[in-house]
Amino acid sequence: MKLKRTHRCGELRKAHVGEKVVVSGWVNNWREHAGPFFIDLRDRYGVIQLVFSPTDEALYEKARKLRAESVIAVSGSVRARADEAINSNIETGEVEIHAEDLEVFNISKTPPFEINEFNNASEDVRLKYRYLDLRRKPLRDALILRSQVAQLTRSYFSRHDFVEIETPFLTKSTPEGARDFLVPSRLHHGQFYALPQSPQTYKQILMMAGFDRYFQIVKCFRDEDLRKDRQPEFTQIDVEMSFVDETDVMSFVEGFIVELFKEVLGAEISGPFPRMTYQESMDRFGSDKPDTRFGLELTDITAGFGSTEFKVFRSVHGKKGYIGALVAQEASGYSRKQIDNLNQFVISLGAKGVAHLKFKDGEFDGGISKFMGDAEKAYMIENLGLKEEALVLVIANESAEAAKNLLGHLRNKLAEDLELIDDSVNHLHWTIDFPMLEYSEEDQRYVARHHPFTSPRDEDRDMLETEPENILARAYDLVWNGNELAGGSIRIHERELQQRVFNALNISPEEAQSKFGFLLESFEYGAPPHGGIAFGFDRMIMLLARAASIRDVIAFPKTASAVGLMEKSPSLTADEQLKELGITVIKS
Amino acid sequence: MKLKRTHRCGELRKAHVGEKVVVSGWVNNWREHAGPFFIDLRDRYGVIQLVFSPTDEALYEKARKLRAESVIAVSGSVRARADEAINSNIETGEVEIHAEDLEVFNISKTPPFEINEFNNASEDVRLKYRYLDLRRKPLRDALILRSQVAQLTRSYFSRHDFVEIETPFLTKSTPEGARDFLVPSRLHHGQFYALPQSPQTYKQILMMAGFDRYFQIVKCFRDEDLRKDRQPEFTQIDVEMSFVDETDVMSFVEGFIVELFKEVLGAEISGPFPRMTYQESMDRFGSDKPDTRFGLELTDITAGFGSTEFKVFRSVHGKKGYIGALVAQEASGYSRKQIDNLNQFVISLGAKGVAHLKFKDGEFDGGISKFMGDAEKAYMIENLGLKEEALVLVIANESAEAAKNLLGHLRNKLAEDLELIDDSVNHLHWTIDFPMLEYSEEDQRYVARHHPFTSPRDEDRDMLETEPENILARAYDLVWNGNELAGGSIRIHERELQQRVFNALNISPEEAQSKFGFLLESFEYGAPPHGGIAFGFDRMIMLLARAASIRDVIAFPKTASAVGLMEKSPSLTADEQLKELGITVIKS
Repeated sequence: MKLKRTHRCGELRKAHVGEKVVVSGWVNNWREHAGPFFIDLRDRYGVIQLVFSPTDEALYEKARKLRAESVIAVSGSVRARADEAINSNIETGEVEIHAEDLEVFNISKTPPFEINEFNNASEDVRLKYRYLDLRRKPLRDALILRSQVAQLTRSYFSRHDFVEIETPFLTKSTPEGARDFLVPSRLHHGQFYALPQSPQTYKQILMMAGFDRYFQIVKCFRDEDLRKDRQPEFTQIDVEMSFVDETDVMSFVEGFIVELFKEVLGAEISGPFPRMTYQESMDRFGSDKPDTRFGLELTDITAGFGSTEFKVFRSVHGKKGYIGALVAQEASGYSRKQIDNLNQFVISLGAKGVAHLKFKDGEFDGGISKFMGDAEKAYMIENLGLKEEALVLVIANESAEAAKNLLGHLRNKLAEDLELIDDSVNHLHWTIDFPMLEYSEEDQRYVARHHPFTSPRDEDRDMLETEPENILARAYDLVWNGNELAGGSIRIHERELQQRVFNALNISPEEAQSKFGFLLESFEYGAPPHGGIAFGFDRMIMLLARAASIRDVIAFPKTASAVGLMEKSPSLTADEQLKELGITVIKS
Repeated sequence: MKLKRTHRCGELRKAHVGEKVVVSGWVNNWREHAGPFFIDLRDRYGVIQLVFSPTDEALYEKARKLRAESVIAVSGSVRARADEAINSNIETGEVEIHAEDLEVFNISKTPPFEINEFNNASEDVRLKYRYLDLRRKPLRDALILRSQVAQLTRSYFSRHDFVEIETPFLTKSTPEGARDFLVPSRLHHGQFYALPQSPQTYKQILMMAGFDRYFQIVKCFRDEDLRKDRQPEFTQIDVEMSFVDETDVMSFVEGFIVELFKEVLGAEISGPFPRMTYQESMDRFGSDKPDTRFGLELTDITAGFGSTEFKVFRSVHGKKGYIGALVAQEASGYSRKQIDNLNQFVISLGAKGVAHLKFKDGEFDGGISKFMGDAEKAYMIENLGLKEEALVLVIANESAEAAKNLLGHLRNKLAEDLELIDDSVNHLHWTIDFPMLEYSEEDQRYVARHHPFTSPRDEDRDMLETEPENILARAYDLVWNGNELAGGSIRIHERELQQRVFNALNISPEEAQSKFGFLLESFEYGAPPHGGIAFGFDRMIMLLARAASIRDVIAFPKTASAVGLMEKSPSLTADEQLKELGITVIKS
């Protein structure tokens, strides 16, 4: 390296005029005029204009041969640009470098796509040439933000005496919920490690070990079929505390979020954040992570349809189902096509459809209005608070939860369509009092909504053997503008209670012992009350960066089929290597 | 939780006298006197004495039933201890808590070993009950130190504009050197991911992406047969920079080390650290990571034995081997047994033995002295600077490197035996100018000493096809008191040079393309000059904490056979799960 940089491209200002500098970077673009040859040189910190004068012919010709994305260093002196040449779009726009020497480090072929903010190359091409894609400002900025948020997170938790402790990646397979990634053991043929789905049991063990306050920013792994915005490996901020109840964990998190929002978004928010029970959240918003930046709440109108002529509704009423309505005051002018769209939307979510009525000048019109008797109409006017005009959307279902969920999604869609959402505000709240269990038709047993280590409320313990479905968990989710930012719970710290919860989940004592024996045993040697929380870090960064996809905030993401397109992973392996591991591939 | 802690056990002082407090923790021990019952309560922050007066009989009896390691909370008031009861061994020794209420969170069975600093339970038992072992102060302190060093590291590098970027764990298998851990792909049967041995190629790709300064504290994996102080998963501080040469990387690292040593050890050191070539290091110390806190340097005395009667030495001289000596001025009184020990020591390292002579009052005596002619004796007196008395240890070998290595180990052992090492000083230096390649007899080809992406020195490029063994690499190792703290290099950033290095390593273009095609291709789209370094984090913490083993600075280490004794990993897996992965276990 002949020319070693003295300054970054992005840092040069008027104050540098007259200085001799060396800058290094990528040729962003160039312009040829009758006179000098111009290159915009780019590094991570910005762009600076280089000027090659034709008076130095050798240098001028050398510069003219450069193509986009080649890597060079240039020495020269900083000059002020003439007034008419000032570029106010870039921070270095008042100056330029009069080039005196040029070192070419690496010549670039023509890249498969342009390196700018607006490129529309296919995502597969972008992923294959990730080193080019990452040169684009939005991705670069997102990864720099990610690093900043990680440091801010660590600074906050360290400052509050949390110890960052690394938990193992080669762990025991305890399939519960999602599928594990397995790692064959070479030293113990026929045995496998699992990559951790979360450090849950380890962080609880750290509480038994007396660490009191633990955190970690850590990779976790789930071998699931990838949906939009899921990755086989993902990052979470993992937190656990001893001698705490829900309020302690929540208030620590609130302190963190207040600091984060101030530093990253410049947003002034303050705790404590409101708390809403799961029940209220479902009743009012049809979601356990509602966007509370707008109203459009659900109304339960089941009671009004006990003796309706409209059979569908009467049947739902009779079967103790649920009929719920959304009132879009702003949407009475919705066209048939717009309403069809809404109908298609709920059908895509698995519903049979959404019923509607328009209300105007005291009268119902369209949709199911013709099936409504006077009693139902009067009931709706009163209970839905109908005054002027409105579009009423109704979903009826034997499962109240299913109906509310549908209305919740419909509510979000309507709010988007009607532009009810104020992007400049930040609503944060906690959802609490989750049901501990839910019945899985597939498994024919209760499964844990959060995970099997979540503590039931003290007052609900007696219901474990009698009415487990009605037990509320000491769990809490943090919701930001309709997104789940974090979820956690107070854990069980007594062996007997943990065993009873396993029983309720139909996990036998033998199975519990084989999977979680070490945890159960640890409860017998002095386990403190403890609880914690985990943040989905990728998603959090995506939201903070306002990125379109989680893949835009991960340096090297996998595709939806879990393939690394750049390095081509997974890949075939030598038979010899598998033999050493004591495994073989099943021929299909 | 009825009693919520207001203070930590370790924080109470005289200033708190009179305050009502609640503390929580583990029963460390107890004492029963005629009068009150005493409990020492322990948390992460220290120990406080609780006093249960017999006047509150119910509380007194409840307390008396507690056993060691049970977890409780106690409310009460802080009192000053009587002068004669002050315990100056603990920071809270001037006060105690007069207990008024007691909540028992969890009763402990008798632990399998005592929770104190001096327990001598077997390591297997300690690992099985890791949550108990981690309650011991040395382990707790080591993990807290580890967290502090991690934060300090991140603070240093972030402050200097390094971006922390997470590289993938599910990567491509590119066996080169160590064995990969493999992860079967469920979606692509017969294909495997590999856990990364290091983020080497990814961090280079990040340089192509323009990130300029990258760091990460990251887990890496090697499926090697575990030696002492090796773990299948280990942590490294990984650093890479663009537009730099060796001095830039070294000076950043020096800044980091100066800060680290000041903060953690309270040691004032300053950069730049001395640099020593590999050749000089081997010649003087018989090691590329010598402990330079003491002398005891090697002397090459080969030239003195061209015509000796002593056949062994003459033969080595004739075969252009190496005869080297260590002079231990302090050890002329070594007994036969002590010398035997040294001999056994070098034999355990694979040598045939070490020759010795004693020198006293101008005369040689003992060992091989009887085979020495006057010429050799005179040569040694002059070249070894023998004056008073000394023990001379000599190793001769046809391979100079082998002989020097043996002398290097012997030098360390002698220094320990003779207590030549001043533990209070910190010697830091760089080893530079490593040979790029070494010939592997096993593989019958040259292998990279560092890794195949290390750049040769510019002036040595032309030797790639002619005398690769003489090429020096742009590599550097940081050595602290005889330990390798970090190692790195300037990398290749040109496709053609990388291909020539692969050729020298006997890696065919096809193989290179299939393993590292993406890296080679990235060199063609604008690759900046770049280089970096990696620190073995576990080892660094072990040295900073003066821990006996690397396992004492890892929360959940594996045994030498890669087993997790606490959670019992690896473990058997359901056939169904393997079938989903398209693999089966080979029956043996």
